[in-house]
Amino acid sequence: MVLLVHHPISPFARKIRLQMSEKKMLFVLREEEPWKISEDVYKLNPAGELPILLNDGIVICGNYAISEYLEETRNDVSLIFGTVEQKAEIRRLVDWFDNKFYREVYRNLVYEKVHKRFAAGMAPDSKIIKIGLNNLNYHLEYIEWLLEQRQYLGADTISLADLSAAAQLSVIDYLGGIPWEEFRNAKIWYSKIKSRPSFKDILKDNIRGILPTKHYANLDF
Amino acid sequence: MVLLVHHPISPFARKIRLQMSEKKMLFVLREEEPWKISEDVYKLNPAGELPILLNDGIVICGNYAISEYLEETRNDVSLIFGTVEQKAEIRRLVDWFDNKFYREVYRNLVYEKVHKRFAAGMAPDSKIIKIGLNNLNYHLEYIEWLLEQRQYLGADTISLADLSAAAQLSVIDYLGGIPWEEFRNAKIWYSKIKSRPSFKDILKDNIRGILPTKHYANLDF
Repeated sequence: MVLLVHHPISPFARKIRLQMSEKKMLFVLREEEPWKISEDVYKLNPAGELPILLNDGIVICGNYAISEYLEETRNDVSLIFGTVEQKAEIRRLVDWFDNKFYREVYRNLVYEKVHKRFAAGMAPDSKIIKIGLNNLNYHLEYIEWLLEQRQYLGADTISLADLSAAAQLSVIDYLGGIPWEEFRNAKIWYSKIKSRPSFKDILKDNIRGILPTKHYANLDF
Repeated sequence: MVLLVHHPISPFARKIRLQMSEKKMLFVLREEEPWKISEDVYKLNPAGELPILLNDGIVICGNYAISEYLEETRNDVSLIFGTVEQKAEIRRLVDWFDNKFYREVYRNLVYEKVHKRFAAGMAPDSKIIKIGLNNLNYHLEYIEWLLEQRQYLGADTISLADLSAAAQLSVIDYLGGIPWEEFRNAKIWYSKIKSRPSFKDILKDNIRGILPTKHYANLDF
């Protein structure tokens, strides 16, 4: 049995869920709150971070190790593909969204609005939110630029770069505030990703205590 | 020709330099200051981050893409090896040092002491330094724990996990303050890594405006 320890607020867990679904894998989910990591999670992953994959007793920890492990073991559907240069381009963009977007947008918006509240009962700092929103615009511009070069973000077909990006954006979109109308090509791209069977489960996500924005689950938003 | 755009303060560039040297690759270095990224660098890497690899006109950006690219194209010396589970363990620890150690130790110590000074002429915040030093102790404990399980951090022979860890630690060690005497096994391990031919170049590193601590280049420290 394949089990993923996750939380709907975790973009990295969302990415792995999308990757497994694209590979038509069956898996079950176990939810753990990232702001209140349990002893059980620390036993599995001493880093105390999500996601964690349990595959028939084998434990694989963290977004990087899990995504490469899935590429190696379930390669009938490949999400890092092509020549070594094309693979490097896909990984460059995975890194962009997993690290740069995460640090510049996710941390400023989602940590402020959600983690701070649940972890410490604190209100968000509007200055930090503003920085996050400015950065979001810049990243949406970059997505538009990439879509002028190719059909999807990392290549002309869907790759792990799209899943990394959509995973991050889907958490932001749950909370609302993405100026989709100003970024038409990014919107068309996200709408295509949203319509994939692998995304169905993500659109049903529910972060306890926070309602999704109205259009969150709409394919035509 | 292989060229790496780097800076001696960048742990990720150090990691790639170590990886290329372990693979007996010949390469030249070009230094760029991370606190004053030039237009040239942005043209190569829109993320504006180091390192950047130029391999006969092919540009590969960022630590993740470069390290996997080198594993794929120069596989006579493998640094991510073994069964898929062993590879996942190596990658888990690469992630640990590239992300967790970087965030919890490097950002608090090196950003405060070096980046803040060169980027903004600001003095370090002693509270942040203290947090970084506390976290450093915890990470050294974890290194000791790993070395009770195996000869090197990720396996019984040297792997990318050791290079990631040693790259981060070597920048901290340049500035001084690692309590090596309290972590004997970590010290023995670091001394082994330091003695490798691949490390020679790192020990000659010079961060302009900052002298290395006395023992930095000593193999017997």
